[in-house]
Amino acid sequence: MRSRYTDYIREDIGSGDVTSELLVPPRRRASGRIIAEEQCVLAGAVEAFSVFEELGAEATEVVKEGTRAEKGDVVMTVKGSARALLSGERLALNFLMRMSGIATLTNDLLHRCRKINPKVRIAATRKTTPGFRQFEKRAVSIGGGDTHRFGLDDAILIKDNHIAIAGGIREALRSARQAASFTKKIEIEVGTVDDALTAVEEGADIIMLDNLAPEEGEKVAREVRSANPMTVIEVSGGIRPDNIEAYASFADIISLGWLTHSVRSIDFSMDIVPE
Amino acid sequence: MRSRYTDYIREDIGSGDVTSELLVPPRRRASGRIIAEEQCVLAGAVEAFSVFEELGAEATEVVKEGTRAEKGDVVMTVKGSARALLSGERLALNFLMRMSGIATLTNDLLHRCRKINPKVRIAATRKTTPGFRQFEKRAVSIGGGDTHRFGLDDAILIKDNHIAIAGGIREALRSARQAASFTKKIEIEVGTVDDALTAVEEGADIIMLDNLAPEEGEKVAREVRSANPMTVIEVSGGIRPDNIEAYASFADIISLGWLTHSVRSIDFSMDIVPE
Amino acid sequence: MRSRYTDYIREDIGSGDVTSELLVPPRRRASGRIIAEEQCVLAGAVEAFSVFEELGAEATEVVKEGTRAEKGDVVMTVKGSARALLSGERLALNFLMRMSGIATLTNDLLHRCRKINPKVRIAATRKTTPGFRQFEKRAVSIGGGDTHRFGLDDAILIKDNHIAIAGGIREALRSARQAASFTKKIEIEVGTVDDALTAVEEGADIIMLDNLAPEEGEKVAREVRSANPMTVIEVSGGIRPDNIEAYASFADIISLGWLTHSVRSIDFSMDIVPE
Amino acid sequence: MRSRYTDYIREDIGSGDVTSELLVPPRRRASGRIIAEEQCVLAGAVEAFSVFEELGAEATEVVKEGTRAEKGDVVMTVKGSARALLSGERLALNFLMRMSGIATLTNDLLHRCRKINPKVRIAATRKTTPGFRQFEKRAVSIGGGDTHRFGLDDAILIKDNHIAIAGGIREALRSARQAASFTKKIEIEVGTVDDALTAVEEGADIIMLDNLAPEEGEKVAREVRSANPMTVIEVSGGIRPDNIEAYASFADIISLGWLTHSVRSIDFSMDIVPE
Amino acid sequence: MRSRYTDYIREDIGSGDVTSELLVPPRRRASGRIIAEEQCVLAGAVEAFSVFEELGAEATEVVKEGTRAEKGDVVMTVKGSARALLSGERLALNFLMRMSGIATLTNDLLHRCRKINPKVRIAATRKTTPGFRQFEKRAVSIGGGDTHRFGLDDAILIKDNHIAIAGGIREALRSARQAASFTKKIEIEVGTVDDALTAVEEGADIIMLDNLAPEEGEKVAREVRSANPMTVIEVSGGIRPDNIEAYASFADIISLGWLTHSVRSIDFSMDIVPE
Amino acid sequence: MRSRYTDYIREDIGSGDVTSELLVPPRRRASGRIIAEEQCVLAGAVEAFSVFEELGAEATEVVKEGTRAEKGDVVMTVKGSARALLSGERLALNFLMRMSGIATLTNDLLHRCRKINPKVRIAATRKTTPGFRQFEKRAVSIGGGDTHRFGLDDAILIKDNHIAIAGGIREALRSARQAASFTKKIEIEVGTVDDALTAVEEGADIIMLDNLAPEEGEKVAREVRSANPMTVIEVSGGIRPDNIEAYASFADIISLGWLTHSVRSIDFSMDIVPE
Repeated sequence: MRSRYTDYIREDIGSGDVTSELLVPPRRRASGRIIAEEQCVLAGAVEAFSVFEELGAEATEVVKEGTRAEKGDVVMTVKGSARALLSGERLALNFLMRMSGIATLTNDLLHRCRKINPKVRIAATRKTTPGFRQFEKRAVSIGGGDTHRFGLDDAILIKDNHIAIAGGIREALRSARQAASFTKKIEIEVGTVDDALTAVEEGADIIMLDNLAPEEGEKVAREVRSANPMTVIEVSGGIRPDNIEAYASFADIISLGWLTHSVRSIDFSMDIVPE
Repeated sequence: MRSRYTDYIREDIGSGDVTSELLVPPRRRASGRIIAEEQCVLAGAVEAFSVFEELGAEATEVVKEGTRAEKGDVVMTVKGSARALLSGERLALNFLMRMSGIATLTNDLLHRCRKINPKVRIAATRKTTPGFRQFEKRAVSIGGGDTHRFGLDDAILIKDNHIAIAGGIREALRSARQAASFTKKIEIEVGTVDDALTAVEEGADIIMLDNLAPEEGEKVAREVRSANPMTVIEVSGGIRPDNIEAYASFADIISLGWLTHSVRSIDFSMDIVPE
Repeated sequence: MRSRYTDYIREDIGSGDVTSELLVPPRRRASGRIIAEEQCVLAGAVEAFSVFEELGAEATEVVKEGTRAEKGDVVMTVKGSARALLSGERLALNFLMRMSGIATLTNDLLHRCRKINPKVRIAATRKTTPGFRQFEKRAVSIGGGDTHRFGLDDAILIKDNHIAIAGGIREALRSARQAASFTKKIEIEVGTVDDALTAVEEGADIIMLDNLAPEEGEKVAREVRSANPMTVIEVSGGIRPDNIEAYASFADIISLGWLTHSVRSIDFSMDIVPE
Repeated sequence: MRSRYTDYIREDIGSGDVTSELLVPPRRRASGRIIAEEQCVLAGAVEAFSVFEELGAEATEVVKEGTRAEKGDVVMTVKGSARALLSGERLALNFLMRMSGIATLTNDLLHRCRKINPKVRIAATRKTTPGFRQFEKRAVSIGGGDTHRFGLDDAILIKDNHIAIAGGIREALRSARQAASFTKKIEIEVGTVDDALTAVEEGADIIMLDNLAPEEGEKVAREVRSANPMTVIEVSGGIRPDNIEAYASFADIISLGWLTHSVRSIDFSMDIVPE
Repeated sequence: MRSRYTDYIREDIGSGDVTSELLVPPRRRASGRIIAEEQCVLAGAVEAFSVFEELGAEATEVVKEGTRAEKGDVVMTVKGSARALLSGERLALNFLMRMSGIATLTNDLLHRCRKINPKVRIAATRKTTPGFRQFEKRAVSIGGGDTHRFGLDDAILIKDNHIAIAGGIREALRSARQAASFTKKIEIEVGTVDDALTAVEEGADIIMLDNLAPEEGEKVAREVRSANPMTVIEVSGGIRPDNIEAYASFADIISLGWLTHSVRSIDFSMDIVPE
Repeated sequence: MRSRYTDYIREDIGSGDVTSELLVPPRRRASGRIIAEEQCVLAGAVEAFSVFEELGAEATEVVKEGTRAEKGDVVMTVKGSARALLSGERLALNFLMRMSGIATLTNDLLHRCRKINPKVRIAATRKTTPGFRQFEKRAVSIGGGDTHRFGLDDAILIKDNHIAIAGGIREALRSARQAASFTKKIEIEVGTVDDALTAVEEGADIIMLDNLAPEEGEKVAREVRSANPMTVIEVSGGIRPDNIEAYASFADIISLGWLTHSVRSIDFSMDIVPE
């Protein structure tokens, strides 16, 4: 893992933090505090710790990941060489800002939806920033969400393009059940009641209702549940913070790319005091 | 560069795209079209091309990066093995969505500010997603913005923490001018008219007004310009799409983290048709 | 993927193939044939192709992966610079030997067990050579086996150490079902009928009978099936080519590390003829 | 080296050890013991140590590499976070199993052959698992064997293909002696007494008798020794545990791929006890 | 950074330091002293420290980087395992030899030129050893020189080829000023007084006089200074230790590739004493 | 190999060749010629080719590596996008300059020494630039020199520190002969006639006379040859272009670090003409 942070630090520092090298004596020590500039569910603290550790500084937890920080709260403190603090500041904050943005939104949507259906789950998608997925998924998880697949190797998810090539829902599911490892769940995307019932018949573990309006989705869900109450029902496609509650009553899982691709960052700042 | 895309593809595919391997014959060929689901300034097409190329498929430009695509426009087409198209789809779209989101917002803000001050520049900051900065900066540039520093090695930027350690603005600038390479510009953050004038006197190339209200900023800017009309004036801190125009009249450069940390993605989709 | 082969080639060539550089003119061209020295199910051909391609030579398939080659069969031919053929020979053969060894054994065991139970699956484990797992799993798959988990991120598999820490089978399964992503199957290791029935009750998708003698295993399997016929039953631990058939009648899945950790390689040779 | 282990750990853990993350509290500590399930010459302990160290746990040697462990012996103990132990278990055992399998077989063959010829050496070949050669060669060495060449850059070894291209044994050896670095030994493969004597005349340091039956080999060896008693004689090709002793009386070196490509792993297990 | 040293160590050690492994017991400890065999400005000590640290040994500074060491001075001491000292010796010395060579020459030239013009700077170029630039630039800096650009991303430097393509000096500078980030300085290469004056007019920050004889250079410099005293004047091309002083009186910056591409190394040796 | 060039290109280009991106249209094509500015033995052309190939341009050989180029000779031509040529120029020249410098000096020294002793070899050492050894050794080889060991894994070379720890020359050589692979030569450093004769007795393949004055060296060499005419004699230590001929009459091998650590680069330039 360590090597990963080396790369991120190199992205920001390049051939050197020229300003700090010019103005800050190499052995000068300092301490710093990272402050939440808005209310949030804290995420990214583990990554911020790793950044400072990689630079030889030492960070101490004040607010635990996954709990709420209020505006003005110190969320962690750091001690070490002044150069390390100045060089790591931006990268540590970048982790905190984006990851706390994701965790906070996930948590807010989860609370809103759980009022309607206490068992519903909010899930992320693969619509993540290239190279940064593990952190965005982790932030969703810290916010109380479900990470969904980490990648294409994680579970079978049969989409319309696959169905078209396989020659139909029945054919696709039969091939998948026969050839897939027994360790994998099989999920399939459907758009109509008939397709959904075929999928249930062929043993799909999860049915994804893609881009259905809430009323339609509800109807399909009802039929699926009466055919097999163990089948998991996921809704996906076109779901946003402003329409998510309409899906909460009938879905097991609501997945939305918004959590990772259109989230607003939470503002954090860092004070550095030379010793 | 190529190796970079290998890593991104590996992030999504992991040990294998199990669904496509089960359902899509290895030699089956297909063609695809990528469609903008909303109006936007297109960015990320070069990256999407590289994803497909890395997977052995061939993409063709329809809309040029940096130009507007309308809702429903096909922005590029792809041909190759069906597996390659299915495996590369999500990653290619992830590049397009995020980068076009950034380019579109940058371009919108630039147009709004240029109506007020035809010479003003909109610039990004280092508040970027770890590991993804080069793409976010490139998207800003495609949208007509200024990339600002790529990292800490790019230019001297003296912030309050540096000033405190160096013992004052005058001392910090003198040290910097003496020790920095002659190839680097020197920028300094100031908060008052006095500090700004000291900075001009000591030869700062750029003055950054950090977190000043527009009226205050304007006042400092006026004094700086009368002291040295060549000094570049940047405003930064707390600038958002909803307050940016208040800074446009008096600044040379308006920089805002929002462009890269809180942007909403543009929606794209991909149609795949087996041959 | 390409970069992977570069590393393998570098492992064998180091600072240079000194013999070929001394004795083979750089532009001398040659052709080669790879021959199976014993009957086998061919695997590793894709990797052998990649080795030669990476070195700038061109390989042509004669025998398809997954089919039987007889002793003496040419399985592929290669054309290119004599140096490339000589430098790639050992590495290409190393892939073929080990992977065909695995595929052949997997296939043999599968045939023997399917005579007893036409639905049984033979699966690999994570007892693989460090760094080489993807190839060993692929060879199992080519031989008709099930790859099982690729790694610890692939599915939930609760072993006795986890159960001890979680405070019992019931507690472990409840925690797992609540916190795991809905995309993951949950498997648990059990040793007695009671534990197996508790696991079924708590919704385990797969029950692993670890290190049970065939008679005991059969008894547990019978009880599990009468409690829930959908639960998948895997046997594992202490299974070898010489005792595997005793498990075939009652298990859904037989997994054995032997496939990847104690397999005998198949012998291949390569003829090179300078043009 | 450290980075190497990071890669191996990543191969097994991927995006996370989901089971342990769900069921084992992050600060829970545990201790573990690794036990040999059969008699063996221990190898791979240094690698197992590195795996646990990389994960932040601490291992303590009980049995020294290169010495015999009896069935049931604890070979090392480990202390650390329960998650680290659970996540590192499989990888550490995979190193021990394969490397101890190789060291044990090497040692057994060496003892058998030394009874016949107390000066004979048993050597590995380049028939190793791609990417894993350094560990397999090290295991051979721990078992008392000779590592032979690590790669194509290590020594000159002229095979029939090289001879054919160079235009004969005499020509090949002359070119090699003239152009090779003075730091390299020169070995050549021969099949007849005449070729062997030519090679001796042209100053080959080592003669390799490839795929000769024992009686033929012995005859060639006798002639070579009477021509130049300093020339080293290696036999190779088709040598297996069941026919190796036939070569021991007359060869200096017996090399066989079997040591690394067809070895049976030694069984080890790990007990983990939460504190 | 650490990973970088791992690569350098691997370059020298490859599959193992066979001599030390054969002759030095693994736990044998030793201490060492590194001695300057000629007078020099010490550079590369930080790198030498990192080499030993990476190998688990501990180095202690005796002479500070950037100060003069006399012939026979111990510049650092090392303690650790004898194998670590023997394995790291050559690499540590290679850093010291080359980097001290560069720092010493830079410092000598600087002193000679500063006698003529106390404000002149001596700068490196991009004529560095591939892969080793950061160290060579750092050595220049330790010697009192200016690093100049680290790479093509560091500053705008418009050369004749660019001017030809852009259609003239005026056009090139206008395009550059309009499109370049405001954080970058703009430098342009000129050969005549007219071109230089055009460049000044168009706002070039730095004028590079390439390959001009000293008298010509001086004439251009005089005109540039009278047009704009703020413009920085760099001379480059064909400058060697034996002609550099001819440029010192009129240039702000003298850059020469010689510092990094033709420097003579300083001789260092290492004593190792087993404990 | 390709990946290696990607790293070198990234070292020079960083986040982008800002000048060319500003001033050169992306599809503008150009051709270039690389010219030797002094007489030399050409080396580094393969590397220069790889640089341009990696950037998508195409280079054509004019002068062959290892042959003499005269001042003013075009040594290769290049065609491709103007940006690729401009971005690759410096790196390609850096390879050519340093490697041709090494090849030329090696060749000159070889010619001078061969006049005295037609069988003597000139060899490099491990005193190379960290990370760049393979290229420097290759340049020595192109110039007609012997590469000597590529690293510590290449051959046994017993130095005084090893002898001290092993307890004497006799003990060190016995241990080495017993434990080293039969594929390795054994070399030992000696300083007196007695030590040299002990080394010969104990079967050293090569005797290195370190830091001996020519007369002393000659005396030791005479004794060694009369004891065993097959033993190879290398002289090393303190050898420079100005004293090398004094060793040529009696040594088999003369090795000197100067070839790689203190060589003067050969000057090359590149003309670029837009099409």
